[in-house]
Formats: sequence, C-alpha cells, structure tokens
Amino acid sequence: MDLENIIKELIELLDNKRIKDLREFLYNINSADFPSILLELDDEKQIIIYRLLTKEKAAEVFVELESDEQEKLINRLTDVEIRNVMNEIYMDDAVDLIEEMPSNVVNRILTNTKPSNRKIINELLKYPEETAGSLMTTEFVDFNENITVSVAFDIIKQKGLKKETVYNCYVVNDDRKLLGVIDIKNLLVAETDELVKDIMDTNVIKTNTLEDQEEVTKMFNKYDCVAIPVVDKQDMLVGIITIDDAVDVIQEETEEDFELMVGITSTTDDSYFKTSVFMHAKNRILWLLFLMLSATITGTIMTNFENAIATLPILVAFIPMLMDTGGNCGSQTSTLIIRGLATDEITTKDFLKVIWKELRIALLVGFILAFINGIRILIQYHNILIATLVGITLILIVIASKLIGGILPIIAKKMKLDPALMAAPIITTIVDIFSVSVFFGLATIMFNI
Amino acid sequence: MDLENIIKELIELLDNKRIKDLREFLYNINSADFPSILLELDDEKQIIIYRLLTKEKAAEVFVELESDEQEKLINRLTDVEIRNVMNEIYMDDAVDLIEEMPSNVVNRILTNTKPSNRKIINELLKYPEETAGSLMTTEFVDFNENITVSVAFDIIKQKGLKKETVYNCYVVNDDRKLLGVIDIKNLLVAETDELVKDIMDTNVIKTNTLEDQEEVTKMFNKYDCVAIPVVDKQDMLVGIITIDDAVDVIQEETEEDFELMVGITSTTDDSYFKTSVFMHAKNRILWLLFLMLSATITGTIMTNFENAIATLPILVAFIPMLMDTGGNCGSQTSTLIIRGLATDEITTKDFLKVIWKELRIALLVGFILAFINGIRILIQYHNILIATLVGITLILIVIASKLIGGILPIIAKKMKLDPALMAAPIITTIVDIFSVSVFFGLATIMFNI
Repeated sequence: MDLENIIKELIELLDNKRIKDLREFLYNINSADFPSILLELDDEKQIIIYRLLTKEKAAEVFVELESDEQEKLINRLTDVEIRNVMNEIYMDDAVDLIEEMPSNVVNRILTNTKPSNRKIINELLKYPEETAGSLMTTEFVDFNENITVSVAFDIIKQKGLKKETVYNCYVVNDDRKLLGVIDIKNLLVAETDELVKDIMDTNVIKTNTLEDQEEVTKMFNKYDCVAIPVVDKQDMLVGIITIDDAVDVIQEETEEDFELMVGITSTTDDSYFKTSVFMHAKNRILWLLFLMLSATITGTIMTNFENAIATLPILVAFIPMLMDTGGNCGSQTSTLIIRGLATDEITTKDFLKVIWKELRIALLVGFILAFINGIRILIQYHNILIATLVGITLILIVIASKLIGGILPIIAKKMKLDPALMAAPIITTIVDIFSVSVFFGLATIMFNI
Repeated sequence: MDLENIIKELIELLDNKRIKDLREFLYNINSADFPSILLELDDEKQIIIYRLLTKEKAAEVFVELESDEQEKLINRLTDVEIRNVMNEIYMDDAVDLIEEMPSNVVNRILTNTKPSNRKIINELLKYPEETAGSLMTTEFVDFNENITVSVAFDIIKQKGLKKETVYNCYVVNDDRKLLGVIDIKNLLVAETDELVKDIMDTNVIKTNTLEDQEEVTKMFNKYDCVAIPVVDKQDMLVGIITIDDAVDVIQEETEEDFELMVGITSTTDDSYFKTSVFMHAKNRILWLLFLMLSATITGTIMTNFENAIATLPILVAFIPMLMDTGGNCGSQTSTLIIRGLATDEITTKDFLKVIWKELRIALLVGFILAFINGIRILIQYHNILIATLVGITLILIVIASKLIGGILPIIAKKMKLDPALMAAPIITTIVDIFSVSVFFGLATIMFNI
C-alpha cells in the first residue's frame, strides 16, 4: 500500500472511530513512514494518532520527526508522555534532540528524563561536535572476558532488546578496557561452554571519542562494519557508532561539500524548503559579494587594454569563450582533486604527481580545443592571425586553469582548510584574471598595438 | 600498529624466513588493509605473502583488491588456488569480478568454479546493470514459516558461517514467497518452541530485482536497515542487498553526480591516478567543446553591440563581473535543486514552489549586490548613470540566473535526464547570453547609443 492509500484508510478508520482497527493498522506502518503521514493530517488528528501508538513505536516515530515537528509535539504532550518517550529512545537520539530544541523545551525534556539517563546525556553533550564521541550511543552489549558463551546469551536475552544493536558484542576486562569483538554469527556457532575471550576477535577496528566523524565514516567504508566501538583515552569502552548514523554523516558531509563548492555557507541541516528565504540569501550572499568584487579586478585589467579593444573591437567577442573555457577546465580538475582528497585517494604528498598528470591532460585538451576553435574562427572571420592568437591563448588558459584547479585544493588541505572551498567559483575568478591578461597581452604584442 | 610498521615487520619476518610467526602476524591484519600492504611489496614477495594466508582470508583479501591487481594475481595463481578463492567468495563479489576481468581470465575463473556456483553467477549476470538484481547476493539465511525457533538456530549454526549476514533472517512459505523478516535480536529473545511465523515481522521492507539501485539506497537511508530482501515478479525471495554494498553505491552515485556537475562524462569507477591521461582528456573534452562553442554565441552578441563598446569602452569592464555573478548565482541554485531532487526532498511537483522561493531570494540577493556594487562604482567612476545601469542589470541577472538554475534541473528530471547535467557549466553558458544581451540592450537605451 502506498502512502496516499495509507493516509486515506487511516482517516477513514479515524472518522468512523474504529479505534481497535486503527491501532492494529498503525502497528503495521513503518516508523520511518510516519513523518510524511502526520504532515498530511491536521493538528488534532496528529495527536490522536500519536497517542494510539505503542510506547516503543511512539518513541521510534518521535525520533524520525523533523526537529520543528518534534518541538510542536513536545509542547502538546503531557509530562508522562514525554517521560515515556525519553525512557524508550536511544541516548544518541536523546542528545541530538536536546541539541536542537530551544532551552524551555530542553528543560521540560530533562525534568522528565530519569536521573541515570540524564547523567549519560550530560556526558555525551560534553563531546565536541562532529567527533566520534558526539555521534556514539551508549547502548551496546558488552561481556566480561571470563564469561562463557551461554552466559553471554543470557545477557543478550536480558538486555538485548533495549540495546541499539546486538550484531556485534564487545568483550572487556575488569577495568572495562576493550579486548575484543564478537560477531553474533560467531557466538551462535560457538560451543556454549567456551569462554568469550577464546572466540573473540582481538583485532578490533575501533576509534576514540575525539576522532573526527568524517574519519570514522571512512573506517566504515574501508572495513565494511555495522558498528565501530569507541574508546576513551584509557582505552576503556564508552560507546559504539552504528552504521546508520555513519551513513547519515556521509550524507551530511557530502551535502556540505556540494554547497561549499558553489559558495554556499550553510550552518543548518534544514532542507531546501524548510530554510527561510532570508536564511537562503544569507547563506549565499557572502561568497557572491566576495566573488563579485574580485571579478572587478578582471574588469579593471580589461580597461587597461582600452587601446587594444579600440583598435581591434573583435577581440572582445572572444572574452566570454576564453573565460568560460578556463573556468570549466579549472573546475573539472578542482572537483576531481577535491573528491580525491575527501576519499583519501589523493593525499597532499601527491602534489607533484597531480601537477604532472594535469599538465599532460591540459596539453592534450588544450590542443584539441585550440584546433577546433581555430577552424571555427577561420570559417567565421577568415583571419589566421586571430585564430593563432586565440589558439595560443586557449592552450595557455587550459594549462593554467588545470594547474590552478589541481594545486589550490591541495594547498587548502595543507593549510587545514576545507579543500571544497577551492571549487568552481574561486577557480573561475582566478582563471579569469589570468585569461584576460594573457589574451590582451599577447594581442598587444602580436598586433603591435 | 600503523601500516608503515606493519610492512616493516612483515618484510623482516619474511627475510628471516620466520614463516610460522609470519603466518600468525598475517592472521591478525585486517583484510581491508592488505591492498595497501601488497602494493608496497615486489611481485615475488606479494605472492609468497598471499600464499601464506588461510583460505578464507585469501578470498577476503582477493575481494578487497583493485581489479588490475586481481587480474595480476589470478595470472599467477594455480588452478587449485583459484578454485579455493571461488569457493570462498560471496556470489555478488564473484559477479563483480567476472564483469571486470578480460575474457581469457573470465574463462579461467569459470572453469575453476563449481557448477552450482557457476549457475548462480550466470543467473546474477542476467540482471541489468545498476538494478537491485545486479547488486544482490544469494547468500542469505531463510526459514520455512512452519519451523520453530530452535530449528531456526540449528539452521543458522549449520549454514550461518557461509552466509553474508545472519543479522536478518527471512521467512518464506513452501513456494518460497517472502512472508516476513526476523531480526536476530528477536530470535534470541524468543522461546525455543515458538514458530518463526509467530515472531516474524510481516511488515517487510523489500525491493524487486529490477528496481534502480539508487532507489534501493534511499530505502536503506529511510528505514535504517542492515539488509533489504529482493523478490522477483512472483514475490519469491531471490536475494538480499547488504548495507555495505548500498554504501558503496551511494558513494559511486555521488561521485558520478560531482563529475557530471562539472561536465565530466566518466564511464569507469577508476580512481584519479588509475585513469590514464588520455582517458581523463576524453572524459572532459566533450562538454568543454560543447560549452566552448556555445560560449561563442555570447561573443557574437557582443560584436553586435560594437557601437556601444566604441562609444563607452568602460562598459566592457563590467562584463566579467556580470557574467561571473550570474554564473555563480545560477549554480548555487541549481546545485541545491539537483541535490534536493537526488534525495527526494524536492520533486517535480514542486516546480512552482521552487520558482516562488528563488524569486524572493533573488530579489533580496540582487538588491544587496546591486547596492554594494553601486557604491563601488560611484567611488571608482563617479558616474551615477553607469551605477544605475549596472545595478539594474545585476538585479535582472540574479533573478534570471536563480530562476534558470531552479527550473532546468526539474525539467531535466521530468524529461528523465539526469538533473546533475544542469549544473554550473551549462547554467553559466545560458546565463552569459542573457547577461550580455540585457546589459548592452539597457546601455543602448539609457545612453541613446
């Protein structure tokens, strides 16, 4: 059944007050589908539906909602209902919630959280943003090294349902130091009287609380894990990061890169439509202003060649083509390098390798473009001198733009800046200055202006 | 221990012929680290190391290698060794391998694959590229609906180690129709004499063999699953897709978008350095050529305004700034819309909503840019008429570019083209034509040229 039909059925059940059927119907809807469903209902219906969910489902649905919907909902829930939600949700989701709510809502949430959970939340809130510590959850299954497999299963049966994942279980010593990991598969095929320390994998892929979250996602990618344990400075197990949270981070970091690469400085994760017109303008204006003012440099250079333009006004006709081609060549290269740096395929040590590669590509591409454009100019203007001038300029521009596009992201990385800054907009502006100078400079020499 | 030290230690053990220690040392290295380690060794050492691995590890390491390294390795392995690898690797990896090897290598691989596996591989090869069928693996754990939990555990113990994942198990009826899914967590907490059909979740998130792989990754994102079952047209369970493969697809599709958005038409997944200079040039030249020739339209329009330029040569100085600002504004918008479409946050139905939003943003951004630039012109040229001309042009360009950037990706999507085509390069070229026409058109009127 698709969403549209689900909503129709749901409203019908609700209008006919068939509460028992409705409860069963709701039970079978996936929690991840509720945000879109609730959005289609009016405020009153929303809260009725929400109150018909089981405790566990109510918490699951709550976590799936966008933060503005969460806030609206909290303001309409009773203290008891909030307490139920806070008892059910995972600690990492609780922390995300608290980070996004206004302070009056946070107060109400924390008053309705049991003290033991409040303590965990406060601990988690201490980790700097975008670190493994801020991403991890504290709900994992761990065993002491000296227990047997059958005791391990008892622990899972007893605690497992409340834990975010049982796919990987962790083995610690008496000091809670992380010793090993056991995949549930290996636990299942083991003999019941074996000690967990004898079947654990001691070669643990782990991270520490202060590691950058982007580095953590790279580990997920490389080692294909479903969870990565997080240890503190004393190598004590303090949490785990699950793959679904890692995937969210990958998506967020990619969006950030896409935006940064066209000069958008966004500070929120809100969707396109949720972001206000004013906020969109604010996110975009900074780089536009900077680039607009930088582009006047190119203009000023052109005015210095007023004589050349007056003598040969046709020259102006080639400016857009030269500027655009330079910009396009440069941003092709810079994008490849930025992505290569982001995925660790390229490192700052590859500086010379990149230059050497781009130089050869530029020569090949430059000559082809110059040749085809030369033919076009000969046909259109029957002027071999101009064809030569434009051709030489094109080749020089392609070389310069590919080198600039290859070098700047690596330099940015070296300077601990985000390489994604060195993308199309800034490369285009820099290449423009080069293009215009070279073109008019050469023209002045070739035509003795 | 970091990679550098691992390699040092490894070479030392090898040089001292301490084979037993070496074998143990290798056992503790993660398979995903081997590709980088092997690359640092000469050919002879590579094959010795590879032969010291256990059967399972050898297969795991083999799968991690880049395809050119796999080919090299196969050519140096004996038939028996190839048979061992092909017995151990998962079927989806086998299919990937066969798709990337040259035909003589494929022959040798298939001759050394046992007939039952060869049949599965041939089945999987039939699914069109980039579909769920081509991505799935056939190694999953499934139960008949009528067995008990304790029988289910026996099945897992017996088959589990050979299956790609046991985290989710699938329940089918006698016709192999997919009825439900059981998370291993729920199986562990269930009573041993319960029937699996009584504890299964019937609300299965599933896909079919011909579904686009990008849609499948969206399901992983939305529903936070670790595996999604794949059914055929008769709703029979034929395979599963695991989250690690979904993450790889997300990465690939993102790279494709990044490249397409700067006019790179890449056909391989090879890394930057693995791609030859010639291939790089080939990937980039097509769009460069098209855009270069398109940009000459802007140039030709400018030559039509030769009079304006001759009368007021200063006008030329504003061309780069106007062109760049238009391009930047347009690509900011188009990037946001392309991403919104890719993540389903924006749909083609949102056409008018996007236009209305961008129009308001453009007015706000346009006025700010025009105002600040106006001040700059007044200071630099003391000419209020030119400041007005450039200001009005700027506002019009910002509006046009933001609308074009918002509309084109949605139209592309409607026409079943990849919206990522409508990014910076093409938007810039289109906006250029508009910018130059409006600027000189307005100038002609305002200055009575």
